[in-house]
Amino acid sequence: MSKYSEIYDYIKNEIITNQISYGGKLPSVRKASELFSVSRTTIQNAYFALAEDGYIISEPQSGYYVSYRSPKKQNETPRKEKNRIIYNFSGTAADRESFDFDIWRRHMKAALRQNERLLSYSEPQGEEELRNAVSEYILEKRNVAASADRIVIGAGVQSLLHVLCALIDKGQTVSFPDRSFVQGTALFEDHGFEVHYRYKDADIIYVSPSHMTRWGDVMPNRRRIELTRYSAQCGSLVIEDDYESDFQYNSMPTPSLYALSGGSNVVYIGSFSRLLLPSIRISFMILTSELAEKYRQNIYKFSQTASKTEQIALSSFIRDGRLMAQIRKTRRFYTAKTKLFYNILKKTFPGCKIEISENLLQVILQTPFHGEISDFGKSGIKLYVEKYENGVITLVLSPGGIEQNKLESAANALKKSIEN
Amino acid sequence: MSKYSEIYDYIKNEIITNQISYGGKLPSVRKASELFSVSRTTIQNAYFALAEDGYIISEPQSGYYVSYRSPKKQNETPRKEKNRIIYNFSGTAADRESFDFDIWRRHMKAALRQNERLLSYSEPQGEEELRNAVSEYILEKRNVAASADRIVIGAGVQSLLHVLCALIDKGQTVSFPDRSFVQGTALFEDHGFEVHYRYKDADIIYVSPSHMTRWGDVMPNRRRIELTRYSAQCGSLVIEDDYESDFQYNSMPTPSLYALSGGSNVVYIGSFSRLLLPSIRISFMILTSELAEKYRQNIYKFSQTASKTEQIALSSFIRDGRLMAQIRKTRRFYTAKTKLFYNILKKTFPGCKIEISENLLQVILQTPFHGEISDFGKSGIKLYVEKYENGVITLVLSPGGIEQNKLESAANALKKSIEN
Repeated sequence: MSKYSEIYDYIKNEIITNQISYGGKLPSVRKASELFSVSRTTIQNAYFALAEDGYIISEPQSGYYVSYRSPKKQNETPRKEKNRIIYNFSGTAADRESFDFDIWRRHMKAALRQNERLLSYSEPQGEEELRNAVSEYILEKRNVAASADRIVIGAGVQSLLHVLCALIDKGQTVSFPDRSFVQGTALFEDHGFEVHYRYKDADIIYVSPSHMTRWGDVMPNRRRIELTRYSAQCGSLVIEDDYESDFQYNSMPTPSLYALSGGSNVVYIGSFSRLLLPSIRISFMILTSELAEKYRQNIYKFSQTASKTEQIALSSFIRDGRLMAQIRKTRRFYTAKTKLFYNILKKTFPGCKIEISENLLQVILQTPFHGEISDFGKSGIKLYVEKYENGVITLVLSPGGIEQNKLESAANALKKSIEN
Repeated sequence: MSKYSEIYDYIKNEIITNQISYGGKLPSVRKASELFSVSRTTIQNAYFALAEDGYIISEPQSGYYVSYRSPKKQNETPRKEKNRIIYNFSGTAADRESFDFDIWRRHMKAALRQNERLLSYSEPQGEEELRNAVSEYILEKRNVAASADRIVIGAGVQSLLHVLCALIDKGQTVSFPDRSFVQGTALFEDHGFEVHYRYKDADIIYVSPSHMTRWGDVMPNRRRIELTRYSAQCGSLVIEDDYESDFQYNSMPTPSLYALSGGSNVVYIGSFSRLLLPSIRISFMILTSELAEKYRQNIYKFSQTASKTEQIALSSFIRDGRLMAQIRKTRRFYTAKTKLFYNILKKTFPGCKIEISENLLQVILQTPFHGEISDFGKSGIKLYVEKYENGVITLVLSPGGIEQNKLESAANALKKSIEN
């Protein structure tokens, strides 16, 4: 073994065994060459190699320092004992009764029989058949007029935002009303945009008018018109994520920003996961004609993310009128459930402030509480905490994912978890 | 017809035909009730319905305004007359005989019966069951040892690269061996990386060792070892896109860079689309332990793109040994076809230079040509042109997507298109 690698191994061992710990300074090259009785070049080479392998770093005009930390055991992260979720109030689950699996299976089976089509990749923009179906559906549903040419299909909102980010200039400012849509804000930051948390006043304005906050607030018409005018004046691009617009019925139905603006500077995003099955990852984005042109010029850069089989199935599902039927059914179903849960909570938490959200999907509960927020998870309850201060906690509860006949025991479990 | 719907239709028609244009104010309820000689309630109901359908909006304390704009004609871009593809030599299609649809359908149907699982979103990282199956498969297949914790599932390589880009520092240099993988290079540029076209010498080195060029060149072992050493020395991160490694059999099976390096600075990416069905968009990425740790810390930023149903189906497909069987079958099938096509071309283009690519998936044909490259498309032929100069064209032809009994007519169509 060469002198150099002897020294390399010696120091490496000192570091790994924590004899010289993280941040500790190594002897200077001169000093080390005396200590080990070798040439300075040998020391220098050993230090270089150690730096290269990540054990030490060189700080100019100062010396060499240990940069290695013994990996904490949790590299194979001790799989956190996952709390089994018994009652999911977070709004991410769906109720099995709200969806007719048999019909969906029938459409999927028909799609799976189309051997020839399944032998090729999906069009990058999405199956034309589906884009045509979406074009008709969204005109009927939200008065959004857009031909299939301007519609892009993708697996979830994130996939579509990646496409959008590739079409617009980097470095622009993007506004989000708050920090709740982490997957969106992180994505824009990651693509080199400057993200601000405010209502508007940015080059790109991201809004979910039908779901402004976790409380399910709906943007009033007045503000919709104001935003449309504002963005037209400033030349801002509005991204309208029409999340949960399908569930709106408490207040008057509100027009989409897209329809209000005539589609001239609004990109509209809609999704089917929430309406059908969370496991069906199909969303769509309607581009302005300018962005659609840019998309066509850059189409070679993109590939489709949504399952082709599911796209084919969804096309016939929409064509057969199943989607509109599902919307009506889900609406009735969830409204009834929210009201029922509201009444149950009224009885379970007498004297507490209890409200139904504007979109009728959530119940907001304010109650005294003196425990830890993590206690809920430990009791198998998943929920959103809106606020917790001065011994009072505000919870946002979506009963949608809990079966109707379990709502009462869910409320009791919640009470128990709060009182403990 | 009721009074109410008469009024609804009348106003709707006025709006659609632009008699009252966008932003125009409607008569007040009182005034309209006089004009139409009906009760105020009837007018109110008609206005509610018009608002619900997106034609007008209500501005509190002010009145009703038209919110509908007639969609502009030029939204429907004149569809470019697409050339119908008759013979696809581009390698993007698969042969129907290479895949047993019945088996896949069986697994999909079983997955579709799992109602309870389909009611929730897929794990952001991918279904654990699938990650476990991939972990075992890839160890057996490519000697790549990685626990399910380090595997991320996504809909296609692009989706996975978006995840990876979010985990590594921006502004670094990325090298690609050439410009052929546009979807990859565009993505990195879009995320703020500096892309270079060279073999290595970059912070991040992207390689497809089993498919180095369109010619299907395979990276020799000597270069693999060299690259592994080089990247370890420089601290570069290698992204090993193991595209088409499954089809390799001409040369000796080559070790993965991941296995050679012990996985310390290699991210491995594999895909099932090519092996099973192009329409099945499931790929996987194996992160280094450092990046896996970072992924876990940032997991809230990501959502899953691959279809949950297809993930469940693929898990059982792999567990039942169907994937390995499919690999063997596809290999035999495509080798035989390439050889057959080679012999057909030898006869159809006597005297021309004809070669089989190293990965045995393509035939390279060099022949005199005096037309336009676009002529191929017009004749319904899709292919790659490698070079065209001085009256000689070099074509890369993948016979994989063409049925065996059509190879001869495909070769004749090609000859005709070249001679015209």
